[in-house]
Formats: sequence, C-alpha cells, structure tokens
Amino acid sequence: MTLDFTHQTLRQRVVFAPGQAAARVGDEVRRLGADRVMVIVSGSAAEKVTDFTEHFPVALWHREVVMHVPAEVADRAVAAAEVGDIDLIVSVGGGSATGLAKAVALETRIPIIAVPTTFAGSEATNVWGRTENARKRTGTDDAVLPTTVVYDAQLLTDLPHDLAVSSGLNALAHCIDSMWAPRADPINAALALEGIRALNRGLPQLGPGDDGLSGLEDTLYGAYLAAVAFASAGSGMHHKIAHVLGGTFGLPHAQTHAILLPHILAFNAPGVPEAEARMAEAFDAETAVEGLRRLREAVGAPSALSEIGFSPGDIPEAVDLSLSAIPESNPQSVTRENLTALLTAATNGVQP
Amino acid sequence: MTLDFTHQTLRQRVVFAPGQAAARVGDEVRRLGADRVMVIVSGSAAEKVTDFTEHFPVALWHREVVMHVPAEVADRAVAAAEVGDIDLIVSVGGGSATGLAKAVALETRIPIIAVPTTFAGSEATNVWGRTENARKRTGTDDAVLPTTVVYDAQLLTDLPHDLAVSSGLNALAHCIDSMWAPRADPINAALALEGIRALNRGLPQLGPGDDGLSGLEDTLYGAYLAAVAFASAGSGMHHKIAHVLGGTFGLPHAQTHAILLPHILAFNAPGVPEAEARMAEAFDAETAVEGLRRLREAVGAPSALSEIGFSPGDIPEAVDLSLSAIPESNPQSVTRENLTALLTAATNGVQP
Repeated sequence: MTLDFTHQTLRQRVVFAPGQAAARVGDEVRRLGADRVMVIVSGSAAEKVTDFTEHFPVALWHREVVMHVPAEVADRAVAAAEVGDIDLIVSVGGGSATGLAKAVALETRIPIIAVPTTFAGSEATNVWGRTENARKRTGTDDAVLPTTVVYDAQLLTDLPHDLAVSSGLNALAHCIDSMWAPRADPINAALALEGIRALNRGLPQLGPGDDGLSGLEDTLYGAYLAAVAFASAGSGMHHKIAHVLGGTFGLPHAQTHAILLPHILAFNAPGVPEAEARMAEAFDAETAVEGLRRLREAVGAPSALSEIGFSPGDIPEAVDLSLSAIPESNPQSVTRENLTALLTAATNGVQP
Repeated sequence: MTLDFTHQTLRQRVVFAPGQAAARVGDEVRRLGADRVMVIVSGSAAEKVTDFTEHFPVALWHREVVMHVPAEVADRAVAAAEVGDIDLIVSVGGGSATGLAKAVALETRIPIIAVPTTFAGSEATNVWGRTENARKRTGTDDAVLPTTVVYDAQLLTDLPHDLAVSSGLNALAHCIDSMWAPRADPINAALALEGIRALNRGLPQLGPGDDGLSGLEDTLYGAYLAAVAFASAGSGMHHKIAHVLGGTFGLPHAQTHAILLPHILAFNAPGVPEAEARMAEAFDAETAVEGLRRLREAVGAPSALSEIGFSPGDIPEAVDLSLSAIPESNPQSVTRENLTALLTAATNGVQP
C-alpha cells in the first residue's frame, strides 16, 4: 500500500476536566492574557456557569443564542463585542452557542474558549455558519477554531437520555464515515478509531439510571475525536444521504444518522477490509457490523426510517438526490438498484 | 477511569508523497506565496534534490550543516537568510539539517518546509537546539515547528540497513515511552499506537534485499507519529535511562534504545494493563513484550549493552544517575534493586 496523502492538523488546546470548567477556563483566560471576556451562553446553560465570576472577571454576558446563527443575531453579538472592547470570547452551550462565537470571531478575529454542553463537535472544527434570508452559508476559517476547548462532563448531566444517545450515535457516524470520506487518510482513521472505542465504551453507560460521569466523559472524548476526524476527512456516503433525508424530507438529524449508519457500514465494509478490521477491533467485536449492532442494541437505537416520518414512496426521490451527492471516491460503487435496496431496508428497519 | 488531561495539538501540514518531493515542495512554496527560498541541505543529501529547481526558484543553497547545531554555524545561516532576504526555508536532511533550519527560524521567524531523509522526527516537534561552548541548549518555540513536512520515502533508499533499523527502533521507543511519560494522555497514546502499528509493519520490510518503498514509507509514517506523540508526552523512564547511558557512558544512541527497550517495556507493562493490551493489539501479538520480541528478532536488533561498550562495573553509577532522572509518575516504582536487576539483564543480553 502506498502512503500518498496530505493531512492538515489544526492547532488547538483541549482540556478534559470533569467538574472543573470554571477553574480551568479561568486558567486559560490568564494564560491567554485576556482582560475583557465576553461569555456567550445559551439560556438553558446560563445557570450552570454562574461560578465563572469566582474564577475570572466577566466583562459581558451575552445570552442571545439562536439556532443556525441568524445574521441579525450574529451582527448584534459582533457589535456587543466591539462596543465592549472584548479580547476573548468564552462560549458555553451546544452547537448554537459555539456557532455564534465563531460568527463573532469571523468578523473580529477575537479568540474563543469553547465550553461545550452537547456532543455536537463544532468546537473542534474551523467551520463557521451564518443564516441569512433563510439560507445558511458555511465556510472554513482558522480564526473561528476555538483556541482552547474545556470539556466538563458535569455540565452535561442534565442532557436528556434519548438526546444524548442519538447525538452520541451521530458522533459515531462521523467516525465511521471518516474511514472512507473523500479526504480519508491514516491519521484521520487513527483518530476516528479512537473515537469509536470511546463511544463504544461511553454510550452504553449513558443509561437513565447511571448517575456516574464516566459515560459522559467517554462520549465527550469520542465526540471530540469524531469532530476532528470528520472535519479533516470530509463528508462520506453516510452524511451525504443523511443530508438528503434531513434537507428534503425533514427527517430529524440525530435519529436519521442512528438508523442509516448500520446500512452504510454494511454496504461499504467489503470495500475497505483493512478499515473494517480496525473498526471491529475498536468495537471489540468479530466484525464492525456486529460491533455496531451490539452497541445500537445496548443503547436502544431506533431502526426504521418509517418510524420517523419517511415512507416507501419517498425512496425513488431520495435515491435520485443521493446518487449525485455521494462522493466518487466511495469504496463501493453505488447504483440506483443497490441504493434503493439499502434505503428500503432502512425504511422498513430490516437490519443488514 | 476519569478523563482529566490537557492536550496541546500543534498546527502542521504533512504530505506523504513517495518519489514526489520536488513537485510537492514546489506546490507548498506556491501555496505559502514565498518568493525567496533558501534550501538548507546536508552534503550527503544535496545530490538528491538537484531537481528542486525544476519545480520552484531557489534563491540560496546553504550546504553548511553540522551535527548538534554549533552556534557559529547557526549564526552564519541566520546571516545568510537575512542578507538573502529569504522568506521561506526548505530543509533537506536528517536531524542536523532540520535543526539548523529551526535555529534560523528561531531568530528570524521565517517558516520552514522540512524534507526529512532519516527517521529522526525533529521535523514534527517545536523543539530547537543550539550548541555553544560544547553545551547544547534546547527549548521549545512554535515558530521553529515546520509549517509543512514533505515525506518522500524515495529519498531514504540509500539509508544503510543497520542505521535504518536502529533509527526505526528509536522511533518505536518514542511510541512506547509515550504510553507512560509525564504528559501521557489518551490522544498521545492513540497516535503512539498508530506509530507502533506502522513501525511493526515497516521495519521488517527494511531487509537489505527489499528494494520496494513500502517498508520505508511505513517506517517514515511511524517515525512521524512517534515524534508527535513523544514531543507531547515528554520523556519517560526509557529515555531518561537512555540519556544517562549515552551522556555519561558514551554509548551509541540508537543501539542503546534498541537494547534497553524490551527491558523497560517488561518492567512497566504490569503497571499499565490497558496500555499493554492496546500495544499488544498494535503489535498483533498476545502481549506487548512478545510483540516487541518478535519484531526485534525479525530485524536482528542488538540485545546486550556489553556488546556496545557498557560493562557490569558501570551499573552502580548508571543506576544512581537514572534513579534521580526517572519521572515520579512512572507507573511502576523504581528502586535501586529493581533497576540494578534491569540494567544487569540488559548488559548481559538476558531477555525479559
């Protein structure tokens, strides 16, 4: 096998510190020499970080966080940062809070410390988004990559169980899709495999009766690796189809991933025997497909697209749209016939 | 297990492109928008890169490369870069060429593209060194980390077999020591384990009769990962002892590593059961110790310190010096007794 690839590693500091977000963010604020800190925090997360002010001075609390980063919301945050003479942003929340911080950094070049409260992973990428006239523009710029991420599993203890699981499976889909995405390379694969191990360990511990942090810690760690690998490798077959199902048919993001993933894995596995063996090892199973089946069973993942609003009649259009979106580099060749069979099985919940 | 660690990832672009160094360096020169390129190349490597000028203009060839970066050699290179109005350095060679480029970058902040011709790994770290009055000072500065590394296995085809093997085993020692070094963390471990896999695959293919590139490609890839993991994790027990044996007793660097490694691995393995299992998996063996034994046998590694100039009478002093150097965080506690036993076995070539 010839090793012929280019890999760009991005600069970022990650801190894993359960129960210590405020203290560790304070350390980072001092390390970065910041004087005027703006905390961007979603309403739901605000009460979790009232102890921030015991560890560093907050010049400005900014609580207007809206999904998909509407332009007017972003512009108001940029103006607030400029008026406030802000030199560091601390974002606390899910993808929307991180996304707003990125929108401010894009305009102002102010560095970000991100404190994620979900498994979304945006904090580990240089991708930004901004929604104007109901259209979301996205792009990449290293200035929006948070300088430091502080992962504190304690902040996620109130994440509803079904959301935690489906969002964790979404991260798993990032790992698996990274194995054959257009810019797949051995370094992305090594990080993605470490992510699969962490998620395979963490997700089954997220049971509603489990009040320990360990499942959340492993899942956060896996979600971080998933984001790093996926941002570098790009979207593969799985995410292209999931995007069609979400965008055109309005299916819910996380569940769509959970249902689709085993079908894509089973479809592509024969084309990537080495990656398949490594994934099986990471799942601690005989085969990757078997490992994913066991994990999905352990967490009670949904299994039929028909249960979440997709009907057999939608299959032909979904196949058409997906065919043109799936990367040519996909390890198995995709045809109208085999894709129809795949989506039919996924619709009916027939496991591969 | 609690995940409580801080990991700093450095920004770097790595290009693996067998047989294509000149073209790929040319691409990078244009991508970085450089006008005045200085090529730092050791005498032995100079004839390998005469085709550089077909792919990009070279403003200055600088061929004075000396081991350990003597201060006067570094100063002359800095002056040459300044007089030549240089805006990009391309270094070609082993650790000495990369080291000189770093010394120039330290003073001038000029970015570097490194093209390694050994498995030294310096190209993947932010560590610089400079020797003045027979003393080598070292430090870290992100400005000396090469912006891009271009790995071209074709440039290593004339590396003598014994040097290739011992230098590859040195890289393996970096991977293994990273598993328990003072700043060991799961991300370093994931990269180090990927390095072990690559070296375990590549080193046995470096046989004198093997003229394919594949062993060199895998070993280069493994050496890159080893350097990234080791620079982040720091020196563990293995490197502290190797440093004593090299520094005080003048033993040759690479062979010392090759001989010492199985003893340190066998000593520490019981203290890190999880890392041991992961290393065993990476070696594709029942245990990590067995995997390393098989690999050492396959490449004909040396096995007794007595064969390379160390005598049993040196053991007490080596133990004294090592005891104070070994990190307190070492997973197994080190005593005068067990360290004496370890060094006695290594001296006599008694395998663990």
